[in-house]
Amino acid sequence: MEGFGVHTSMWTMNWDREGAERAVAGALEYGVDFIEIPMLRPHEIDPDHTRALLEKHKLRAICSLGLPQECWASVHPEKAIDYLRLALDKTKACGAEALSGVTFGGIGERTGVSPTEAEYDNIAKALAPSAAYAKKIGLLFGIEPVNRYENHLINTGWQARDMIHRVGADNIFIHLDTYHMNIEEKGAGNGILDARDFLKYIHLSESDRGTPGEGTCDWDEIFSTLAAIGYKGGLAMESFINMPPEVGFGLAVWRPVAESHDEVMSKGLPFLRNKAKQYRLI
Amino acid sequence: MEGFGVHTSMWTMNWDREGAERAVAGALEYGVDFIEIPMLRPHEIDPDHTRALLEKHKLRAICSLGLPQECWASVHPEKAIDYLRLALDKTKACGAEALSGVTFGGIGERTGVSPTEAEYDNIAKALAPSAAYAKKIGLLFGIEPVNRYENHLINTGWQARDMIHRVGADNIFIHLDTYHMNIEEKGAGNGILDARDFLKYIHLSESDRGTPGEGTCDWDEIFSTLAAIGYKGGLAMESFINMPPEVGFGLAVWRPVAESHDEVMSKGLPFLRNKAKQYRLI
Amino acid sequence: MEGFGVHTSMWTMNWDREGAERAVAGALEYGVDFIEIPMLRPHEIDPDHTRALLEKHKLRAICSLGLPQECWASVHPEKAIDYLRLALDKTKACGAEALSGVTFGGIGERTGVSPTEAEYDNIAKALAPSAAYAKKIGLLFGIEPVNRYENHLINTGWQARDMIHRVGADNIFIHLDTYHMNIEEKGAGNGILDARDFLKYIHLSESDRGTPGEGTCDWDEIFSTLAAIGYKGGLAMESFINMPPEVGFGLAVWRPVAESHDEVMSKGLPFLRNKAKQYRLI
Amino acid sequence: MEGFGVHTSMWTMNWDREGAERAVAGALEYGVDFIEIPMLRPHEIDPDHTRALLEKHKLRAICSLGLPQECWASVHPEKAIDYLRLALDKTKACGAEALSGVTFGGIGERTGVSPTEAEYDNIAKALAPSAAYAKKIGLLFGIEPVNRYENHLINTGWQARDMIHRVGADNIFIHLDTYHMNIEEKGAGNGILDARDFLKYIHLSESDRGTPGEGTCDWDEIFSTLAAIGYKGGLAMESFINMPPEVGFGLAVWRPVAESHDEVMSKGLPFLRNKAKQYRLI
Repeated sequence: MEGFGVHTSMWTMNWDREGAERAVAGALEYGVDFIEIPMLRPHEIDPDHTRALLEKHKLRAICSLGLPQECWASVHPEKAIDYLRLALDKTKACGAEALSGVTFGGIGERTGVSPTEAEYDNIAKALAPSAAYAKKIGLLFGIEPVNRYENHLINTGWQARDMIHRVGADNIFIHLDTYHMNIEEKGAGNGILDARDFLKYIHLSESDRGTPGEGTCDWDEIFSTLAAIGYKGGLAMESFINMPPEVGFGLAVWRPVAESHDEVMSKGLPFLRNKAKQYRLI
Repeated sequence: MEGFGVHTSMWTMNWDREGAERAVAGALEYGVDFIEIPMLRPHEIDPDHTRALLEKHKLRAICSLGLPQECWASVHPEKAIDYLRLALDKTKACGAEALSGVTFGGIGERTGVSPTEAEYDNIAKALAPSAAYAKKIGLLFGIEPVNRYENHLINTGWQARDMIHRVGADNIFIHLDTYHMNIEEKGAGNGILDARDFLKYIHLSESDRGTPGEGTCDWDEIFSTLAAIGYKGGLAMESFINMPPEVGFGLAVWRPVAESHDEVMSKGLPFLRNKAKQYRLI
Repeated sequence: MEGFGVHTSMWTMNWDREGAERAVAGALEYGVDFIEIPMLRPHEIDPDHTRALLEKHKLRAICSLGLPQECWASVHPEKAIDYLRLALDKTKACGAEALSGVTFGGIGERTGVSPTEAEYDNIAKALAPSAAYAKKIGLLFGIEPVNRYENHLINTGWQARDMIHRVGADNIFIHLDTYHMNIEEKGAGNGILDARDFLKYIHLSESDRGTPGEGTCDWDEIFSTLAAIGYKGGLAMESFINMPPEVGFGLAVWRPVAESHDEVMSKGLPFLRNKAKQYRLI
Repeated sequence: MEGFGVHTSMWTMNWDREGAERAVAGALEYGVDFIEIPMLRPHEIDPDHTRALLEKHKLRAICSLGLPQECWASVHPEKAIDYLRLALDKTKACGAEALSGVTFGGIGERTGVSPTEAEYDNIAKALAPSAAYAKKIGLLFGIEPVNRYENHLINTGWQARDMIHRVGADNIFIHLDTYHMNIEEKGAGNGILDARDFLKYIHLSESDRGTPGEGTCDWDEIFSTLAAIGYKGGLAMESFINMPPEVGFGLAVWRPVAESHDEVMSKGLPFLRNKAKQYRLI
């Protein structure tokens, strides 16, 4: 994973054939290096179709997901392992390079109380074999800290790093997201500093998940710190404008946070690219 | 409401006699102009005790709350009216000047889908008589937009303004909170601009609800915009470090976001006061 | 003056026929509302040519200057009056709406010691009749605070306001510049707050005078504060890449601060326009 | 050089016995790790007095200067060598660890045109033996880029780096200053990134040289980038409120940029220390 890409939520959250074709066509217009494929229902994905599409357009990809409630790793580590194995197989079959996201639990998972050691141990139990399986089949495997409302377990860069240490795996990477960091970190730079040893992927997402450059994220601090740690991983623009109901509750997007996809692509994408160039990241 | 105050969550979230005394003693040490009293269970508050405490120390106060689920205005407007009436009576009896907060619903209220006109109509149905009653007994009555995860109905300054227009009341004020604005507004300044005609109170809360000055809020933009609109209302520092379980889920505070109360008071309070002075707000 | 314009230094600093034509052609490509004409040598300008050019393209204009050393108002108020009268006549004849800039002195004027009352009195002596003359011929007349190195007399918004009070004129406006404010003001917003009663024009210039959006100016604070004061004046992008020797010393531009004019126009202009739209100024 | 220190301009710009004693007494009150001694007239300094004072209070020190016009390295490299040798001897005799500042030229040096290769060669000619001599007597030797108005030769981090490469010395360090970076760099972080291989000292100076925390410097970006490069050098607060005439022209301080020294020390110092702690630099 490297270069500048885009989460395909701009075009679809349903990765069926039609959605995949629309997303790839859309992404190609903007000259991105890779796309992120949302793997909401991995079993429904047609990997041969996706692989052919990616190969045809020489487009690299990464897949991402959150676990469904019956497979939350903190509660059901064995089911999480099975689910992640399926998702990893699909990822590989699609020709993508990595599986990442809330691979440790649910988008919207909250017990109402602070995390327990038992929950973290269960997560480690699920992540260890998943990371090993990913390695075996030649994939990278990531975990993405999300904000306190989307999950109570891993909200910050240092919590992600602690989890990697707990698992003891050498092939789990951290996947940061500026939207979540804007809520959780004591300065977005601190999230990057804490995650740096394992950081290979970052979502560039504005503070309201709308058009990058038109919110409260401190992009100068973010890009400067990334440059300073010698970041070489993927930079993926993410904006959530319209969400399907199954992730709507977790993501809590109730109103359009940008006027249109075109607004995000025509204003947000150049903003992020210019800023990444200013700090010599691309 | 004017001057510089503090939310008493620094000292207690239980406004019983012991909590009230600890909070008032704590606030007095820092020379604040007023305190905010969390009214989690209005019926349990001893208003005479609070009134005597406030009068003894010549301390002004504002009360705040979120509605319990059985009284969410979007669903049960009549029950909301009753609950708010009780809370207003208690507020008055305590000698406070205003009742505010998520007076239109729950902290943690989410349907999973976008707000409906019916929900907004129900809220207006509850707010109109509540505002009228507040006026009758000489109180100010406010509504506080909170972020998408804490409530799906009123997240931004313009949504609060729209609700006031819907109610048609002339004595509802908007109560902003920089923590929520940092997630919801397209630049914190825009939230202030949208709310300006009705803005009388603002929570100065850092992006992670920890120590003000050590997060991602753009305090210069916030204070400069407040100064530019000629803001004369209350400035209330808020930090949530330890929360009781009944609001823990809604507020989603899973880890200490500051080392200690002392850290918040000794670093965050001077930071905010200096910044408010820099922009000549105090 | 209103709308979004551009300082023609992007295309020329020599306002001869050739320079004027190149600048107008350049500005038209970007759909600006007005241009700023640098009046370095007012006597050499061919006003009929400029007027015809502006009328042909329905382009509005403002002229700007700094006084040559022999006409510095702090030392030679009578000569300043004569010089400004000539410049005002030329401005009028060109069909421009206003004369502004360092109309009170030199770009590069510094005594090495703090300003004296006598200097300020001399400036007031020069500005009063100049403002009166401008009014008589139907022009607006502005003063632009510049940073401490370019002039020791008026560096901040409040100093400009004080000068207007000293003059007692009712038709001098303040012309701010974000580049200078970034050095002089205690938060750019404070410069706007101090100048607000007289503010009609602002240079949007990056911290290094290069590509707007790629420096240290806090554009969110600037635009939010402008929006909050209800600013209706002109927004003029300014970038100084290549300067002729006669202003080179004063402006101290020793290296190209942007790769090219195209870089400024293709990256900086959209950045500023988007930001102005975000805060609903255009 | 390491830890958190302060430029003694807070107390004196005249390093005679009285000034030295006042400065040391002042600095000790704030528990700093080191002081910076302005060496405006090196020949007048009484090094035994300073050394005794520093030893008595176990205070570390660094000396700094700008060259007088007759010794500007770009014009008179031989005279610069002599002057720097004297200054290095005095620095050593005072018990300080390093000599830095505008060691390559004058504060206020400007030809009015862009730097020439001949000027840079002359500077290299002066710096090479000076750095060698510093090494021989056990001192560090630094160069400080200053803004375009204070010197036309080395304004940015990359220009300082280029000069070190030109000299070929292995013991010249870069001394950055946030005040100058705020004018010159494309994001303060970029200045740090360019200088990183040689960076050992940084002036923490606000955008108007007044109270740190009350200007336009982006302290989060600055500290986050410093942390990310693993910065271990000295952090020196600098504020110039009252300047003697001999540096007044170059520094262009015409008005008090803070209410008082006490304001800087009681507000600015805690602000910088807290921010440095937030990013775990101290």
